[in-house]
Amino acid sequence: MSEQKIPYKIYLSEDEMPKYWYNLRGDMKVKPEPLLNPDTGKPMTHEELSVVFCDELAAQELDEDNAYIEIPQEIRDFYKMYRPAPLVRAYCLEEKLQTPAKIYYKFEGNNTSGSHKLNSAIAQAYYAKKQGLKGVTTETGAGQWGTALSMACSYFGLDCKVYMVKVSYEQKPHRREVMRTYGASVTPSPSMETEVGRKILAEHPGTTGSLGCAISEAVETAKNNEGYRYVLGSVLNQVMLHQSIIGLETKAALDKYGIKPDIIIGCAGGGSNLGGLVGPFVGEMIRGEADYQIIAVEPASCPSFTRGQFKYDFCDTGMICPLAKMYTLGNGFIPSSSHSGGLRFHGMSPILSQVYHDGYMEARAVEQTEVFAAAQEFARVEGILPAPESSHAIKVAIDEAMKCKETGEEKTIVFGLTGTGYFDMLAYQKFNDGVMTDYIPTDEDLAKGFSYIPDIPKNRE
Amino acid sequence: MSEQKIPYKIYLSEDEMPKYWYNLRGDMKVKPEPLLNPDTGKPMTHEELSVVFCDELAAQELDEDNAYIEIPQEIRDFYKMYRPAPLVRAYCLEEKLQTPAKIYYKFEGNNTSGSHKLNSAIAQAYYAKKQGLKGVTTETGAGQWGTALSMACSYFGLDCKVYMVKVSYEQKPHRREVMRTYGASVTPSPSMETEVGRKILAEHPGTTGSLGCAISEAVETAKNNEGYRYVLGSVLNQVMLHQSIIGLETKAALDKYGIKPDIIIGCAGGGSNLGGLVGPFVGEMIRGEADYQIIAVEPASCPSFTRGQFKYDFCDTGMICPLAKMYTLGNGFIPSSSHSGGLRFHGMSPILSQVYHDGYMEARAVEQTEVFAAAQEFARVEGILPAPESSHAIKVAIDEAMKCKETGEEKTIVFGLTGTGYFDMLAYQKFNDGVMTDYIPTDEDLAKGFSYIPDIPKNRE
Repeated sequence: MSEQKIPYKIYLSEDEMPKYWYNLRGDMKVKPEPLLNPDTGKPMTHEELSVVFCDELAAQELDEDNAYIEIPQEIRDFYKMYRPAPLVRAYCLEEKLQTPAKIYYKFEGNNTSGSHKLNSAIAQAYYAKKQGLKGVTTETGAGQWGTALSMACSYFGLDCKVYMVKVSYEQKPHRREVMRTYGASVTPSPSMETEVGRKILAEHPGTTGSLGCAISEAVETAKNNEGYRYVLGSVLNQVMLHQSIIGLETKAALDKYGIKPDIIIGCAGGGSNLGGLVGPFVGEMIRGEADYQIIAVEPASCPSFTRGQFKYDFCDTGMICPLAKMYTLGNGFIPSSSHSGGLRFHGMSPILSQVYHDGYMEARAVEQTEVFAAAQEFARVEGILPAPESSHAIKVAIDEAMKCKETGEEKTIVFGLTGTGYFDMLAYQKFNDGVMTDYIPTDEDLAKGFSYIPDIPKNRE
Repeated sequence: MSEQKIPYKIYLSEDEMPKYWYNLRGDMKVKPEPLLNPDTGKPMTHEELSVVFCDELAAQELDEDNAYIEIPQEIRDFYKMYRPAPLVRAYCLEEKLQTPAKIYYKFEGNNTSGSHKLNSAIAQAYYAKKQGLKGVTTETGAGQWGTALSMACSYFGLDCKVYMVKVSYEQKPHRREVMRTYGASVTPSPSMETEVGRKILAEHPGTTGSLGCAISEAVETAKNNEGYRYVLGSVLNQVMLHQSIIGLETKAALDKYGIKPDIIIGCAGGGSNLGGLVGPFVGEMIRGEADYQIIAVEPASCPSFTRGQFKYDFCDTGMICPLAKMYTLGNGFIPSSSHSGGLRFHGMSPILSQVYHDGYMEARAVEQTEVFAAAQEFARVEGILPAPESSHAIKVAIDEAMKCKETGEEKTIVFGLTGTGYFDMLAYQKFNDGVMTDYIPTDEDLAKGFSYIPDIPKNRE
């Protein structure tokens, strides 16, 4: 029990808290390809981005030089409400698994939004307020981002218009009500409120929507309303920047006790948590200072990394957003509505796509039934009821710990526990009742999605 | 801004954490009347109580001498998972209200069960495990207690059988699934599984149940199953003892910064939070060391303190439990199913009943629509989405702060924020949609309930 000197939960003190975000691009040898204007095929300029994004966020989106960007004092003040997030040693899980591995998880669910999404929501709301805007528009899938943003907007007195993927809107009325309680307006997407929504509904009658559709609607609404800008909870470079607080805190907590992780695991939807958690560690790898096994875990039903193509594609289904070079299943890919997690975006963060392409990270696709089994096992011993998204990482952490059991290796495993599953109990019920199903797209399904990937701009492929 | 030296959230350090629970009875000049055996009319003995309760809990139930009882190390270790709970200065709420009052809240929702109920659940599960039992039975109303107990049982590897008030079972399937995920079995009450359940269903066909019914069923099941005992999340003296950690931490946090509260406010159902929060402060009043205004807030729909009778009554609807001298609406009182909070027990903690009777505490009844309005106002500025139960205290805290605005008094107000409202979004939806209704029982409704209060034992009235 000599290890007990390492606390069950590692918290940073106020003066140990990061004062700068980490911008991985500053250290990357091969920078991610720039966002392109679909009309011109040329890189998006600050001026073009500022039509959609707040000025300062547009600048962050384009900054590939500065590895460290100061966190504004107002945001660090807000952090005091819910940060630092604890790095928890999963002693009970280790004992249950009888593994020699040491398992840690960075728990981001201990705030009212219930997930890591608040890290970027508060930053984006802050910059919108600073710019004197009236409000922001956004999309939400599982609802974590919309909840976080509605909280952040409520804090700063900003209006908040949320387009919620229809399948979630219907399956998760409680999420919707949380957002409404914080004063946000919530519209199921695709809707008849926007041109792009009406078009998508005409082309795909009865569709239950996708993040890609909802993004298109939110962007259109921001463009058409004076004093509004669009904000996005994942994929973007600025989001990876704000979420780097996760990895920076994790690294500081590990360093504080001289712990060197062997494996770092994050769940991957658009990349917000994964990028935030692994960014600082990948930076060390790039700078040649350390080596880690980094694993991205994605749902087999929406396998961007493991079965997608590394190409320029639209970030949205309506094809009104810029093009990004990323691992993508095609902007027309509409994932199975039977999947319960929020990891359903057709593409992946351009930064993480490049990191993966360059071999700093591996990826695994897992099926939802095994994910919920891992979630249940975790909940029963560690107490926390995990979000389905987070449970993808739990599943692979357990897999790796069981490998250690076989080999006897005492590896140190760190994974991101991004949030809580209070609003996912319908999915848990399916699992508890034994009626949860798995879905893996066929090659044909994928080919259909890939057919949406544009040929242009050929000159950059 | 000189006050900023007091942190936004006050946390105790590990060595400042209480090592003893506080047993208010040890200091009370007029002790609460003892539990009576309904068959004999005589005080329940340790032997009799041990048929239903774990041995050590039966001893705690009867202990009216020791004001301090040591918290076992195993429980203090478990506390590390979620305690200390923060004492938060509601700066944003104060600013919104433009009040000179200083408002603090003790937030008990930052654990996976989402409420203060875990404080007693972990203690009761610990003693059950220590006694070598197979499992425990219990009832749950809104579901907070059942959730907390299922977590605690999962942690100690105990079986957990929960009778859930039927109206909640149906309105809150998500709560049910959380309990199932932690391995508990959940039965809607009244059920056909128990003799008392069948009897209640025969007498009240179509009833949506009450805590009183569910208690009867859980007690019967514990008695009929070898290796099981019954546990209860409120009302009992032992629960007040375990929950005293709330008030002890609150007092230590206030003392640390030399803050002297003027008003202390807690929501009141069976008394678990209220007793835990105010106990140590009432103790000071009894000992003549300090004076506070203590306010119990109850729903107007279930007004035990403000409209109940201070008499011996059964703790359960099935009349198989001991008799307790308490403020009661009558064991047959079945509260309106339209009320959304979990504050629906017909009686009230005997300790708190005596404290109220002796004038150390006042009580207010509030209606649910005004409670949800307070909840929404609080959520929007303080970030936390409160449970409806907790919001009763918020409502009166705001009322008192507004009085200070009128008079210019800089009173210090402390209230208990017992939990989060993630599983109460149907009620929030009703409020958001403007279709929430209020219910106040008529004198006739109450008279009907009072008719259930037994005449015996006359000699003790």
